[in-house]
Amino acid sequence: MSSAILLLSCPDQKGIVAQISNFIFEHRGNIEHADQHIDSQSKILFMRIQWAMDKFTVSREDISAKLKPLADRFKMNWRIFFTDNTPRVAIFVSSYTHCLYDLLLRHQDKQLHCTIPLIISNHESIREIANYFSIPFYFSPKSDKNKITAEKKELLLLKEHHVDTIVLARYMQILSKNFVKKFKNSIINIHHSFLPAFIGSDPYAQAYCRGVKIIGATSHYVTDRLDEGPIIEQNTVRISHRDSLNDLKRKGKDLERIVLNQALRWHLEHKILVYNNKTVIFD
Amino acid sequence: MSSAILLLSCPDQKGIVAQISNFIFEHRGNIEHADQHIDSQSKILFMRIQWAMDKFTVSREDISAKLKPLADRFKMNWRIFFTDNTPRVAIFVSSYTHCLYDLLLRHQDKQLHCTIPLIISNHESIREIANYFSIPFYFSPKSDKNKITAEKKELLLLKEHHVDTIVLARYMQILSKNFVKKFKNSIINIHHSFLPAFIGSDPYAQAYCRGVKIIGATSHYVTDRLDEGPIIEQNTVRISHRDSLNDLKRKGKDLERIVLNQALRWHLEHKILVYNNKTVIFD
Amino acid sequence: MSSAILLLSCPDQKGIVAQISNFIFEHRGNIEHADQHIDSQSKILFMRIQWAMDKFTVSREDISAKLKPLADRFKMNWRIFFTDNTPRVAIFVSSYTHCLYDLLLRHQDKQLHCTIPLIISNHESIREIANYFSIPFYFSPKSDKNKITAEKKELLLLKEHHVDTIVLARYMQILSKNFVKKFKNSIINIHHSFLPAFIGSDPYAQAYCRGVKIIGATSHYVTDRLDEGPIIEQNTVRISHRDSLNDLKRKGKDLERIVLNQALRWHLEHKILVYNNKTVIFD
Amino acid sequence: MSSAILLLSCPDQKGIVAQISNFIFEHRGNIEHADQHIDSQSKILFMRIQWAMDKFTVSREDISAKLKPLADRFKMNWRIFFTDNTPRVAIFVSSYTHCLYDLLLRHQDKQLHCTIPLIISNHESIREIANYFSIPFYFSPKSDKNKITAEKKELLLLKEHHVDTIVLARYMQILSKNFVKKFKNSIINIHHSFLPAFIGSDPYAQAYCRGVKIIGATSHYVTDRLDEGPIIEQNTVRISHRDSLNDLKRKGKDLERIVLNQALRWHLEHKILVYNNKTVIFD
Repeated sequence: MSSAILLLSCPDQKGIVAQISNFIFEHRGNIEHADQHIDSQSKILFMRIQWAMDKFTVSREDISAKLKPLADRFKMNWRIFFTDNTPRVAIFVSSYTHCLYDLLLRHQDKQLHCTIPLIISNHESIREIANYFSIPFYFSPKSDKNKITAEKKELLLLKEHHVDTIVLARYMQILSKNFVKKFKNSIINIHHSFLPAFIGSDPYAQAYCRGVKIIGATSHYVTDRLDEGPIIEQNTVRISHRDSLNDLKRKGKDLERIVLNQALRWHLEHKILVYNNKTVIFD
Repeated sequence: MSSAILLLSCPDQKGIVAQISNFIFEHRGNIEHADQHIDSQSKILFMRIQWAMDKFTVSREDISAKLKPLADRFKMNWRIFFTDNTPRVAIFVSSYTHCLYDLLLRHQDKQLHCTIPLIISNHESIREIANYFSIPFYFSPKSDKNKITAEKKELLLLKEHHVDTIVLARYMQILSKNFVKKFKNSIINIHHSFLPAFIGSDPYAQAYCRGVKIIGATSHYVTDRLDEGPIIEQNTVRISHRDSLNDLKRKGKDLERIVLNQALRWHLEHKILVYNNKTVIFD
Repeated sequence: MSSAILLLSCPDQKGIVAQISNFIFEHRGNIEHADQHIDSQSKILFMRIQWAMDKFTVSREDISAKLKPLADRFKMNWRIFFTDNTPRVAIFVSSYTHCLYDLLLRHQDKQLHCTIPLIISNHESIREIANYFSIPFYFSPKSDKNKITAEKKELLLLKEHHVDTIVLARYMQILSKNFVKKFKNSIINIHHSFLPAFIGSDPYAQAYCRGVKIIGATSHYVTDRLDEGPIIEQNTVRISHRDSLNDLKRKGKDLERIVLNQALRWHLEHKILVYNNKTVIFD
Repeated sequence: MSSAILLLSCPDQKGIVAQISNFIFEHRGNIEHADQHIDSQSKILFMRIQWAMDKFTVSREDISAKLKPLADRFKMNWRIFFTDNTPRVAIFVSSYTHCLYDLLLRHQDKQLHCTIPLIISNHESIREIANYFSIPFYFSPKSDKNKITAEKKELLLLKEHHVDTIVLARYMQILSKNFVKKFKNSIINIHHSFLPAFIGSDPYAQAYCRGVKIIGATSHYVTDRLDEGPIIEQNTVRISHRDSLNDLKRKGKDLERIVLNQALRWHLEHKILVYNNKTVIFD
């Protein structure tokens, strides 16, 4: 049975929740979940509302038109999803395989509500893993010189496979502005530090050098500013002087897997709203 | 400015959220927060909805009558609170003072939305602390023999001070069934273990003896079954073989303070619904 | 380069640390790590000391004889390990594969200092995973009737493969007393609860029913008392009323992987001493 | 009964642990704890060794002379402490009182092994708290203009009270280079962020603005570079979009109390060695 999920944001005003609830009720939708949040500084209302479609009297195609007057009146930004439209996720990965394996095993375990139509890597060695999980693999070598050409081919592949979400599962290449623009708030990266600490390359070495007592990992949407996109999820783990740089990397791998998975899970469940380079997460 | 908070539970049915939202909207209430949860096993809907009272066209006194048809139709259990009715909390405490100090300091720091009209203790030594914070103190010594008499006096005091919530801040006396019945889901206890492990007396010694690697604390509503009431909040902290029993107690004190405070905070904000000896917490 | 690791316990007495250090120094061993702990209740000293073997003037074969007078004098329980003797680990697993995959991937990533000569399962479906990681697989179906016969064959296999450590990676069969006796403090189990809470079967269902706000996982050495062996490692994760029983199981899987890995890692590094059904861990 | 604690660091060399152990054993000291660490990059050995003084045949006054040959031979940096020399701690505080109360209550509860001979504040309002805990209070107002003069008086007070350790319990004044130099690795600050993220003023506002999902607190030794001294302890707590800036501050207060207390506790137990702007902590 399918449900609809409406994500919206708009200036806070009296009656929004009631009007939206009413719209659904009048057309015989049964509300399954509803959550809202008002940002007290900007006076913006954020809302996520989910209802059963089985007896809903408006067809999917007509919802937009029917909702338009309400949306216009309240100046809403809104998007609608249907739970039987399984999201299609492409995984980009370089040589580190722990996040890739983690996602594929969770997918195999039916923990992730998505299809993974392809894996793209600049390392040919990943093909074997893709094969084991029976997922199409595309080798896409990259250098500063061929970047734009390579990305063009990748964009074609993504289109062909109807991909809507990209996961950078420790992908060590920086995507071009143009590429990022095409997947706004749809590319999820895992950065191996507790952002905004240790931006850039080799954050574990930076953390080791500074002598911190806790390390972290951060999953965020990719924007055209490196490691500065809206943060979706973070987690931390304790370290001590006994931990070598290698221990940091090892402990960090566990964090990265858990944080990336959590961020992707929320994204796939349409629980994330982005505003002001921050995220509202209705978990 | 005051808001109303409606807490309700009822068998799940189509239209409840819309009907409630509409009821509020029609009488010019602006919904500030709304949260609901459906227990997938029992098909019970839980809801907490908060709206501004300033332009609401129904007076406080009339809300119940106006809401009745809706409540009857959906077979609701419901309670309503107003945010300008500050809860009145009595603290019961024995000889350990860390939780008491913690609550009083948070109260002084305006972190807890309540009045504390009195402190009751079976230890005269607590009076000095009560005095420092200018809170009336009542010495109520207890033994197996005088328990019922002592509780009678305590109940009178609580009535006199219009107390609606009792916090047992490490109170080492077991309350009688009769006493507990008078404050259903309104007595908050802190138990110094990760329940249901280590029920009963001296849980730190039990934990030390078993050789666990993590200890915990649990805050729960008091029922007539010792340490088995609905759990509101728990937290844990890591220990090692280097920690003596005294270290466990010391680390545990920090846990107890944080867990009890969190439980009380949610209670004061009317965010807790109890069902089936479990809690739904709309945080 | 190889190092020796001496694990010992004995009644605390003046001079033990100095005498042991001296013994190593006099024979030209360079101490790389040393850690000790005195249990303040039982007055037992625990010690782990590691030194470089490259210039050590006593051969491996002779260490025991040379150490004997010291060991006798201080009434030591002791064992010695050499870091170039890679431990040999057999994995027992039933139908849940998350812990198995986790161990095999960490092993492939060189995080675990051990050889895995075989995987034994009562589920034929595990063979495919074993094959992917190129590890010999043995199908050993079990019922109440064939248990002793099956265990006999398993014990032969373990002997043949020179196995010294067994990991029960979610193995849903109870080992016989006789089997357990043969691998004292060498069988590591993962139990999917925060022991001693929720002993026995289906701990997640027990936790869900009790309404706890945190769930846990526990790794322990197997003894002949179910779920009561010495605890090596525990960890916890927060849950809420929104988590279904399936969510508990999913969140628990992450815990189980991390806890089991940590316990095995310490075991392989000879950092665990068992005393009084508790563990001393020199991490 | 008193014990001696020797803290040392030196280039790693064969025989150090044995020679030191031997020195203690030969003079009839019973080793109670010993811990060491070798930094694998710099090849520096760090050691903390504690022994009972009751039958030790060298007097306190003579230990330095007796130890000198050994110390010279191994090029040791070393310091010695005696557990019956209770450290003397001055608390500096501005208007926020949560850390101050926390330290004073722990001290009253015998959790902190120190004397607190005085509290210094640039806020007269702190006097009342100092009085309640019967600790001498000094009001020392500060501005950019009077800073040096004020510090001179403070230094005199510290000398007069034989203070060896200073805790900045949310002290909102920056100490001069000269002041800091006089208390090298003896001034403990609490910074209300997860350093190195959010250095400088109003870190909670910075964290709120960046949209992080976890906030932290850091305790470190004060050096002449603001918020860049050796980190002693850090901790973190989860936040969400629902948390206002005030909620961050409130949650942060709990972190600050716990982190500062832990850092001070280790310092008082002489468990911290500083090297390369990092700390080795033998906990």
